[in-house]
Amino acid sequence: MSKTLVIGASGQIGQLITKTLVESKEVARALVRDKSKLDEFKGSELEIVEADLEEDFSHAFDGIDNVIFVAGSGGSTGADKTLLIDLWAAKKAVDYAQKTNIKQFIMLSSIGADDPDAMESDIKPYLVAKHMADQYLMASGVPYTIVRPGPLTNDEGEGKITTRRPTTIKEMKIPRADVAKSILYILSREDLNGKIFELFNGSYDIDTILSIEFDLS
Amino acid sequence: MSKTLVIGASGQIGQLITKTLVESKEVARALVRDKSKLDEFKGSELEIVEADLEEDFSHAFDGIDNVIFVAGSGGSTGADKTLLIDLWAAKKAVDYAQKTNIKQFIMLSSIGADDPDAMESDIKPYLVAKHMADQYLMASGVPYTIVRPGPLTNDEGEGKITTRRPTTIKEMKIPRADVAKSILYILSREDLNGKIFELFNGSYDIDTILSIEFDLS
Repeated sequence: MSKTLVIGASGQIGQLITKTLVESKEVARALVRDKSKLDEFKGSELEIVEADLEEDFSHAFDGIDNVIFVAGSGGSTGADKTLLIDLWAAKKAVDYAQKTNIKQFIMLSSIGADDPDAMESDIKPYLVAKHMADQYLMASGVPYTIVRPGPLTNDEGEGKITTRRPTTIKEMKIPRADVAKSILYILSREDLNGKIFELFNGSYDIDTILSIEFDLS
Repeated sequence: MSKTLVIGASGQIGQLITKTLVESKEVARALVRDKSKLDEFKGSELEIVEADLEEDFSHAFDGIDNVIFVAGSGGSTGADKTLLIDLWAAKKAVDYAQKTNIKQFIMLSSIGADDPDAMESDIKPYLVAKHMADQYLMASGVPYTIVRPGPLTNDEGEGKITTRRPTTIKEMKIPRADVAKSILYILSREDLNGKIFELFNGSYDIDTILSIEFDLS
């Protein structure tokens, strides 16, 4: 049975993913800086590894088959942390994945990371960091899927999305729960490699639209 | 006669390089955000192009053979500008160089950019940006030389350097004038490609030590 490492397991999307993995008895390891943030999983089969993403965290990759990178420096920190976490920790994760022959690396990116110059945006420095991290993963030779959701909400997930970019920012939103579900669907598809999906609130079942996208591309 | 583009020509090292190019009648174009910063070159043969590195500056590459990238966001700005200039503008310059078949791209980098994790440093976010920019250039296929000086000083240049890393930070210093001279020597060597030099104050003539390094590596 393959083993999945969740990097950034105490983040909002990270927790949703971890919870589903635990409930569905998948073999998983959660990487967090502070164990206490995952107290709700005490007594479960989940393996928890404490590590600081600003340090060496290569030990977290021992025996791992799949990597889900959902770590982020968060909106309340400065651009120095964007460089150290969103870019550098992601780059290091790709290096570790390369060394340990990871079968699948799923990267949580962001809409706009494909082309940070495309629009005037306050978050352009963040999009630059995500672009370069994505680009590094794509060039690494590690089998990857990159997920680029629109602006995240805490709305209840309805399991309905689209991968076609809507015309207005308002329509681009997507609940974190549906991003988590999409990532878990991708995880289940070990044959996926080299795909980049944008994700928005929509009217298609997650499994349906993502499998169609996969077949089409 | 080949034509050289200096990106960041109004910076301290940029001005030193530009001045020498003008004095030695090289064909050069200086890219600056604000023309008035190069008033001292009025009436010379220097071609000056105004452009904002945060915007599209591809027009500056028309008819160019060699690129010297010595732009930097400077010490007084935040990490957001480090992402936008030191990383993103450098990445864009590499893209433009690729499209216009540049023969030689000389990148001013920094000691520590090879391995930002090597030591605890306040400038680690900056070193991450420089590392990723260097890595992008190295992977681009554009013929390159990367220069990684130690801490820069405004001491008078004596034209004496070393490429061997000294053991103390204090010994690692190097005058900006000697970095400029080293870059101009590299510019004169159109056969150089794929070399990375660290530069420090030392006891060797710039031409001698750099040509030895080139032959050895």
